[in-house]
Amino acid sequence: MRCKPCGADAVIEIRRHRVAFCRDCFLHHCQEQVRRAISSHRMMGHSERVLVAISGGKDSLAVWDILLDLGYTADGVYLGLGIGDYSDTSRTYAEAYATARGAHLRVVDIPTEHGFGIPDAARATKRVPCSACGLSKRHLLNTAALDGGYDVLATGHNLDDEAAVLFGNVMQWHVGYLARQRPVLPATPGFARRVKPLIRLGERETAAYCVLKGIDYIVDECPMAAGNRHLRYKETLNEIEDRSPGAKAAFYFQFLDQMLPVLDDVAAAERDLVGTCSRCGAPSSAEICAFCKLVEKAAPTADDERQIG
Amino acid sequence: MRCKPCGADAVIEIRRHRVAFCRDCFLHHCQEQVRRAISSHRMMGHSERVLVAISGGKDSLAVWDILLDLGYTADGVYLGLGIGDYSDTSRTYAEAYATARGAHLRVVDIPTEHGFGIPDAARATKRVPCSACGLSKRHLLNTAALDGGYDVLATGHNLDDEAAVLFGNVMQWHVGYLARQRPVLPATPGFARRVKPLIRLGERETAAYCVLKGIDYIVDECPMAAGNRHLRYKETLNEIEDRSPGAKAAFYFQFLDQMLPVLDDVAAAERDLVGTCSRCGAPSSAEICAFCKLVEKAAPTADDERQIG
Repeated sequence: MRCKPCGADAVIEIRRHRVAFCRDCFLHHCQEQVRRAISSHRMMGHSERVLVAISGGKDSLAVWDILLDLGYTADGVYLGLGIGDYSDTSRTYAEAYATARGAHLRVVDIPTEHGFGIPDAARATKRVPCSACGLSKRHLLNTAALDGGYDVLATGHNLDDEAAVLFGNVMQWHVGYLARQRPVLPATPGFARRVKPLIRLGERETAAYCVLKGIDYIVDECPMAAGNRHLRYKETLNEIEDRSPGAKAAFYFQFLDQMLPVLDDVAAAERDLVGTCSRCGAPSSAEICAFCKLVEKAAPTADDERQIG
Repeated sequence: MRCKPCGADAVIEIRRHRVAFCRDCFLHHCQEQVRRAISSHRMMGHSERVLVAISGGKDSLAVWDILLDLGYTADGVYLGLGIGDYSDTSRTYAEAYATARGAHLRVVDIPTEHGFGIPDAARATKRVPCSACGLSKRHLLNTAALDGGYDVLATGHNLDDEAAVLFGNVMQWHVGYLARQRPVLPATPGFARRVKPLIRLGERETAAYCVLKGIDYIVDECPMAAGNRHLRYKETLNEIEDRSPGAKAAFYFQFLDQMLPVLDDVAAAERDLVGTCSRCGAPSSAEICAFCKLVEKAAPTADDERQIG
């Protein structure tokens, strides 16, 4: 197999693009896909300060690396989720990358600052851990971006992530969630702009990017996510993609092009419903926001665990 | 396993409803699901004349049988598609049911009346046979309903069919098709009202209905449909349903409840685009309708085949 742009020996094939690349052309391809995502969705400008959400995994380190290579002023923020060894190890990777790259990484540790970890939150809410984790991340990453005076918060959601979330929202027709599933969520009162520069890259590509660029990342999936619905939807989409290469990208990008414009009114109506949390001042459609409610429930559970332990 | 309504030995379990039935209660359940579909979607009244599209398969014979049992004035129409033995056999089942039930079956034979069969149409258009077959059925069933002075055309699309079509339209975000995927398509100039009374029954249930009611039907799938995308989408949905019973019904009915209202404007805009075919007078958004174009292409191909044969 030959690299399409330069004719050298290829190291990776991307079936949905019917193309193969050598190392250097592949790294350039990834950068180019991020550049195109940023430009076609008007995600951000070079004069803006970017905060990148860093988990220590392949996607977040790849997006940070590419943004820095593209000349963006981008700091990272790592959220400690209190998931035992997994959190300790992932923090090590995040910090190692920042040090090696000479980049600035902020750290927000949920157990230290809010008195609970994700396992406590799952026990306290009696719901799947990913639910408490997602809402904590949304809240705390947004707070970190606003408090740090950043113009934009970038996350490492890739094509596979976005397609799987879309699939889940479609299977249950959460129209409000569908209306909000955009590559750019504009800044609104209390919310920093949020952007997803990796939507044009699959997770196999972000993994290959890190390997070829020599970036070490935590390979293990989060132990709390094992067997969750999101991962099953990824498998289903992968089976469809295997039979019809390109189907996954078509599913996601056709949604952006064809369906989202129809949902503009729904998105506007949703935004109008948002008020302010009476406790922390964050945007919320209820009197007390979901994160403050979670803290209220989860912190005492964490105390109980410590006493029993 | 016990029948939930009466406590007798059950013969069938329906996992998504978490219920099992004996023969009689199951037949009543099927009738009840059709009654509810008709009533909640205001499909038709008892004073209206119904034409049922009959393929000789389980779904079309089940819907005809249930509509007759519910007291509707319902004739059948069988379309001969010119698919060799498959068409001959399926016609036999359709006619045998009509005779046994004392019901009236109209027959429209495409090769006799239009000079081609579906295999010719597939060759002529160089597309999958299901594409030519679908458009021929839509056109000719509608014509049969209008010519016969029927108020409404009923088809045997079941929950599995509708969910798989929805899945296909979602995978490619055909917003226009999504807007039109309704259990009732109201009559518009040139179109009879079309209704799908089986949307609350899965194909396993329509098959069981026919077996328990002693209705013989053609069991084989159409040989031209083997391996098509629609059947693959059914498999994918079945895998999801196996893991989460009820997921398929939620996918379809949440679409009707949550998404279709958002698509009302799209549906209205689509209807406004429809004009009239200059050749046959049927509704069409082009000057010549898709069926007339198909006849033009496919009939000479059929002639060639006959000469070679």
